Amino acid sequence: MTCAVTGSSPMPTHPDFPFRPDHVAAEALAAAEAGASIIHVHVRDRETGDPSQALEDYREVVGLIRAKNNEVILNVTTGRAAPGCRGMKTRRLRSRHTDVHGRTAAGTYSRPAARHVHARHLYDAAMGRVAINLDPMITKMGHMIQDAGVLPEIECFEAGDFVFADDLMAKGAIPKHVPFTFVLGTKYGLPATSEAMLYARNQIPRGARFTGFGVSRHSMPMAAQSMLLGGNIRVGFEDTIYLRRGQMAANNADMVRWAVEMVDRMGGDIASAGETRAMLGLKQ
Amino acid sequence: MTCAVTGSSPMPTHPDFPFRPDHVAAEALAAAEAGASIIHVHVRDRETGDPSQALEDYREVVGLIRAKNNEVILNVTTGRAAPGCRGMKTRRLRSRHTDVHGRTAAGTYSRPAARHVHARHLYDAAMGRVAINLDPMITKMGHMIQDAGVLPEIECFEAGDFVFADDLMAKGAIPKHVPFTFVLGTKYGLPATSEAMLYARNQIPRGARFTGFGVSRHSMPMAAQSMLLGGNIRVGFEDTIYLRRGQMAANNADMVRWAVEMVDRMGGDIASAGETRAMLGLKQ
Amino acid sequence: MTCAVTGSSPMPTHPDFPFRPDHVAAEALAAAEAGASIIHVHVRDRETGDPSQALEDYREVVGLIRAKNNEVILNVTTGRAAPGCRGMKTRRLRSRHTDVHGRTAAGTYSRPAARHVHARHLYDAAMGRVAINLDPMITKMGHMIQDAGVLPEIECFEAGDFVFADDLMAKGAIPKHVPFTFVLGTKYGLPATSEAMLYARNQIPRGARFTGFGVSRHSMPMAAQSMLLGGNIRVGFEDTIYLRRGQMAANNADMVRWAVEMVDRMGGDIASAGETRAMLGLKQ
Amino acid sequence: MTCAVTGSSPMPTHPDFPFRPDHVAAEALAAAEAGASIIHVHVRDRETGDPSQALEDYREVVGLIRAKNNEVILNVTTGRAAPGCRGMKTRRLRSRHTDVHGRTAAGTYSRPAARHVHARHLYDAAMGRVAINLDPMITKMGHMIQDAGVLPEIECFEAGDFVFADDLMAKGAIPKHVPFTFVLGTKYGLPATSEAMLYARNQIPRGARFTGFGVSRHSMPMAAQSMLLGGNIRVGFEDTIYLRRGQMAANNADMVRWAVEMVDRMGGDIASAGETRAMLGLKQ
Repeated sequence: MTCAVTGSSPMPTHPDFPFRPDHVAAEALAAAEAGASIIHVHVRDRETGDPSQALEDYREVVGLIRAKNNEVILNVTTGRAAPGCRGMKTRRLRSRHTDVHGRTAAGTYSRPAARHVHARHLYDAAMGRVAINLDPMITKMGHMIQDAGVLPEIECFEAGDFVFADDLMAKGAIPKHVPFTFVLGTKYGLPATSEAMLYARNQIPRGARFTGFGVSRHSMPMAAQSMLLGGNIRVGFEDTIYLRRGQMAANNADMVRWAVEMVDRMGGDIASAGETRAMLGLKQ
Repeated sequence: MTCAVTGSSPMPTHPDFPFRPDHVAAEALAAAEAGASIIHVHVRDRETGDPSQALEDYREVVGLIRAKNNEVILNVTTGRAAPGCRGMKTRRLRSRHTDVHGRTAAGTYSRPAARHVHARHLYDAAMGRVAINLDPMITKMGHMIQDAGVLPEIECFEAGDFVFADDLMAKGAIPKHVPFTFVLGTKYGLPATSEAMLYARNQIPRGARFTGFGVSRHSMPMAAQSMLLGGNIRVGFEDTIYLRRGQMAANNADMVRWAVEMVDRMGGDIASAGETRAMLGLKQ
Repeated sequence: MTCAVTGSSPMPTHPDFPFRPDHVAAEALAAAEAGASIIHVHVRDRETGDPSQALEDYREVVGLIRAKNNEVILNVTTGRAAPGCRGMKTRRLRSRHTDVHGRTAAGTYSRPAARHVHARHLYDAAMGRVAINLDPMITKMGHMIQDAGVLPEIECFEAGDFVFADDLMAKGAIPKHVPFTFVLGTKYGLPATSEAMLYARNQIPRGARFTGFGVSRHSMPMAAQSMLLGGNIRVGFEDTIYLRRGQMAANNADMVRWAVEMVDRMGGDIASAGETRAMLGLKQ
Repeated sequence: MTCAVTGSSPMPTHPDFPFRPDHVAAEALAAAEAGASIIHVHVRDRETGDPSQALEDYREVVGLIRAKNNEVILNVTTGRAAPGCRGMKTRRLRSRHTDVHGRTAAGTYSRPAARHVHARHLYDAAMGRVAINLDPMITKMGHMIQDAGVLPEIECFEAGDFVFADDLMAKGAIPKHVPFTFVLGTKYGLPATSEAMLYARNQIPRGARFTGFGVSRHSMPMAAQSMLLGGNIRVGFEDTIYLRRGQMAANNADMVRWAVEMVDRMGGDIASAGETRAMLGLKQ
């Protein structure tokens, strides 16, 4: 189970939404304690809560986590290149090359065990903009990630992303046996339905690991669906702050425990960090 | 949620498996109390526990339930015609006509709100025999059930059963808007997979109600899958006595509560008997 | 069957690719003669062959067709708003409002019987740009089209487009019973596979008409797949100039005849313009 | 492409339906000439046309074919054990063992390159009986076939057959890399729809070869669907005598040519016998 503790979207109204590095790290540690074997790491500006790509912020969060937990897997995002997104804009216009190095450098610090590559663009209805991850940039990132000895993960939002991922594998930009993530329920990507997740699972290489998850109210249902399809689970404040309609989670660990109980009722079990490392082919 | 409290298969080893009419009725009442809005009723011989088709046994069980609960919906099985199944054999060889009347009569007593029709045959690996429900018999039963003012339910085990159900609807043997049940994981019918249940759901008329369930260890996972596909749920001792691997349920109510908790974690809610009657178009 | 005679992509190398209005019209007439009941109309600059949105060009092509054929249905594209696409750029930057009126006006001339709305954006690998059709613009176009008494058609490239179409229907921007078109095999949208087309068909309202087609070498296979799924067919030079590998079509009528033969071998028949009008609910 | 020249069902009304061994062989040779690389062989009584399991009849047909064609692959059926089917009844009641040897012996003569195993039972609506192929018999046949150096082929009619095939593979009764055949449109098995064939294809091991075909009017459409799903094709008088509605085929070669033309229009090609042997892993 992955817990995505803060994300990079505008922060929802919640008494305790984590954005300061120390708070994000504390949430990560508590989530790991509650059962999460992977933490999906985004960082935010410690004053404003805006998404941050600053290397120092990543350095701090990762350091605080590792100081107390050496087991949990850190899945650090390469983020999205979003025109208009404060803090990113100047890099984007200056030079793609800079941007790739900027984003990847932020991710390579402290050698997280897994790295997160967005396969495609996303139409972000909440923000009214289009976030682009274009082919050459992704290919470059893919090679840099592999050279740095981290495991890339391919995040797909749409049907075409799987075709794109196949092309990337053919070009050697990503190895053939990487885990996938399906993001369902975004506006306007693959919907959060059983049929869409089954379609997605049928597009990836046979035997490939995947995590299917849904945004907002689709979080728990899609976690259940992913498990039923043989996939892994992701929950966390990045996706929703609600356990279910009308019932807000106190924190990420609360969300993780809720999901652990759901999986247990469904007859499943959550893998430990060690078991997860084995599943993903990461060294212990 | 339907609770199938005892079924007609050989009884598993369990400290408290219900077969005496008073026990079956008590289990039904407790299951209803725990949240089940429909009870799927089979009866057994009060001495041996063998499946019974005796009208008196049904009369007793239904009477005991109704004495204390007038709300819960009773879904009484028409059972299977199984050559070699003790108690049924002579009727089967004598005359199909008798068999139809015998089975349906057992079901019409006390006008249960829903009736259960097996659409097809089932290869019963545990018993080493083939149970047959042939077309003319089912058509006849279908008409008798409708004439008696009960709502038939079509139980499908295999892909071809949906084609068969379509033919029955075309012949007027069953009305167009009947609920369906998908039985998954039997040997050898549709497997207990997401793909099979999605396939099944895509075969029924748009908007038709359905309950997808899995036998034995597939019970809770398939209950979750059915909910995710917009269907209803069935659990109970007829399908399994285990909540999950290594964890036996004390009784049917225990199983129902477990499933209620699972549904809650998934963000769903269980309909009351009244809401269920509305959903199925049964009079209150 | 729809024949899309010229499209708006860069023209392939072909001895006789139609771009002059008289040639485009002649191709349309010949395609109709060969069996196409719908002509998908794009126009090009008579000198350069570049895509044109000029009202006069549409006026000429449509006029030439109608002068000899009053039966065939004309499906006129609203085109794509493409930054960097010559002829469109200035309108786009000036004002969205102008753009909508410009594009729709081009389409309303001569009251074609059907209008074509691109539901989403398209990543155009050949051109290296992203073509955007954003929500407010489409909604506006949708209303204008309906007010003008033409039947809109929703063209979907990706899974998310179906969710978007549902939202448009909820807003009344498009009526509930419009025909759909699935464009498969583009980079990077839904792939040209049976599974993707089945997925697409399962997303549209029950009973809705659809045309599934594939670009380039996927043209004939996807035409066959659409027919097998209960859909309609589209072929034409807009999609490919090849009948099959190594066998170039002389002209659009050649392509249409080839497809007619394929459908015949599969046991199907092509509807006449009159039958098509009935199917789509267009007045005769 | 497989051509199934005569089958074992009651013969339809046709001026030239083959049943005499010399005629069956002639049809097979002509079909191979027209493009079929595999002939699916059933034999019939030379007087009555009833299905025959007589070794001598197989011997004659196969001999006549091989006398003129050493290339085409012969796919000899193990047939079905049908209570009530004349000519089979006595063997069935005497001893399962005899039946297995009887049927397999009929198939092993002249070492055909492929053997056909019915995975399951079939409800034969036309004949009003249930044909049974039970597990122990199939397992035994499977072993005998492999020991005789022939390639078994698994014929599936229903969803559960795939689960059954998996079990057989686990028991070593059939090797893991055998070709499959999906029979669609029978009463009451998997329907002749794109969705059912896609479901079927998704159940077999990744990379396994398969032939999907449809009975009667579903023959050409399902041949097209199989091709689109990456499968092989089967046509022939065993399945239908019609090319399309109202258009009867003169003979099997006629049917094969029609299918070859359909495949060509779809952009495909038919493999030669040599290419087919390579595909199936048969020695040249």
